[in-house]
Amino acid sequence: MKGYFITIEGPEGAGKTTILSIVQQELLKKGYDVISTREPGGIDIAEQIRSVILDKKNTKMDSRTEALLYAASRRQHLAEKVIPALQEGKIVLCDRFVDSSLAYQGHARGLGIDEVLSINEFAINGLMPSLTLFFDIEPEAGLARIAKSNSREVNRLDLENMNFHKKVYEGYLKVAERFKERYQKVDATLPLEAVSKNALEIIESHLNCN
Amino acid sequence: MKGYFITIEGPEGAGKTTILSIVQQELLKKGYDVISTREPGGIDIAEQIRSVILDKKNTKMDSRTEALLYAASRRQHLAEKVIPALQEGKIVLCDRFVDSSLAYQGHARGLGIDEVLSINEFAINGLMPSLTLFFDIEPEAGLARIAKSNSREVNRLDLENMNFHKKVYEGYLKVAERFKERYQKVDATLPLEAVSKNALEIIESHLNCN
Repeated sequence: MKGYFITIEGPEGAGKTTILSIVQQELLKKGYDVISTREPGGIDIAEQIRSVILDKKNTKMDSRTEALLYAASRRQHLAEKVIPALQEGKIVLCDRFVDSSLAYQGHARGLGIDEVLSINEFAINGLMPSLTLFFDIEPEAGLARIAKSNSREVNRLDLENMNFHKKVYEGYLKVAERFKERYQKVDATLPLEAVSKNALEIIESHLNCN
Repeated sequence: MKGYFITIEGPEGAGKTTILSIVQQELLKKGYDVISTREPGGIDIAEQIRSVILDKKNTKMDSRTEALLYAASRRQHLAEKVIPALQEGKIVLCDRFVDSSLAYQGHARGLGIDEVLSINEFAINGLMPSLTLFFDIEPEAGLARIAKSNSREVNRLDLENMNFHKKVYEGYLKVAERFKERYQKVDATLPLEAVSKNALEIIESHLNCN
């Protein structure tokens, strides 16, 4: 593979989507051949799988079934979109990847990080990102940012979910420790411009050194 | 779990479906509480997953995606149908299970038996069958039996597929060797009545000794 595979991770409210868009524009301006994507990424088979996961009628969905379906959708997105782009030498910025499954399903839902990693290793067949940016923000601050951007108050459900969001954050810290050779933390509590600038610097430094 | 989980495996043309039906009837006559099933087994979510696998438009389906989808469908069928029946103390006869994925996708499609086993271990979460009947018939003989029962001649496509069927058989022999503590071979070249009688004896002996 000639390209660079870079993933963006972090809890909700970290500003990932906005920052990713800014970073991609900046890289394009500087002449880099870069695409950004997120699963299922418009890949027909991956979209079909995702619609089974998200169908509200599927209330009996077992959590292991769900984890296997996410891994299946991930594989197809890789096979049809990410791998061909890397083979053409592109930089691929991917909003969420394996580590999201490890933090959300492995740790927060209690399936086990090692167990969820094993099915994802099958799915990715060795294609781990060379760099992962972790947009670090504690769940309370992330939630406050979401509430602000949506111009709505934090409701009862958000607060009930706080325990879950705390577990997700805890999961990310474990994953970041485990894969520290590819992990770079970015302070996501700073203003968006500062976060974008820091993210861009880390990415450019990675591209120049690898 | 109070029940017994028994799986039936073998290449195409081994007569699994017919024999399973006979064996189930005989066990019911003898007063056993027994159900027979096969994936996706009428489980709505498992059927939805299976329809993604089998959709002829999905020509770009990656073989790893497919293996993950089979494992997901298997998990849901277990969670909604097999596990509740075992908890009620029933004998569950399942036509094809993990070993089919190991033989077909792991060995014949070349994904690797260990790799396909790893995602299936996640799917079944420890629920391996206590007994597996392997209906042993070489691919040429199995194909001949299919041709006979369908009242049609063996065509060019069947013969082209022979190499694949040989690999499936080879895969089953590897799996049977690996899991010999739960494997019992039944000579499936004998007439159906004899095969059914032998299968029934093995199952009753297992029920009496466990």
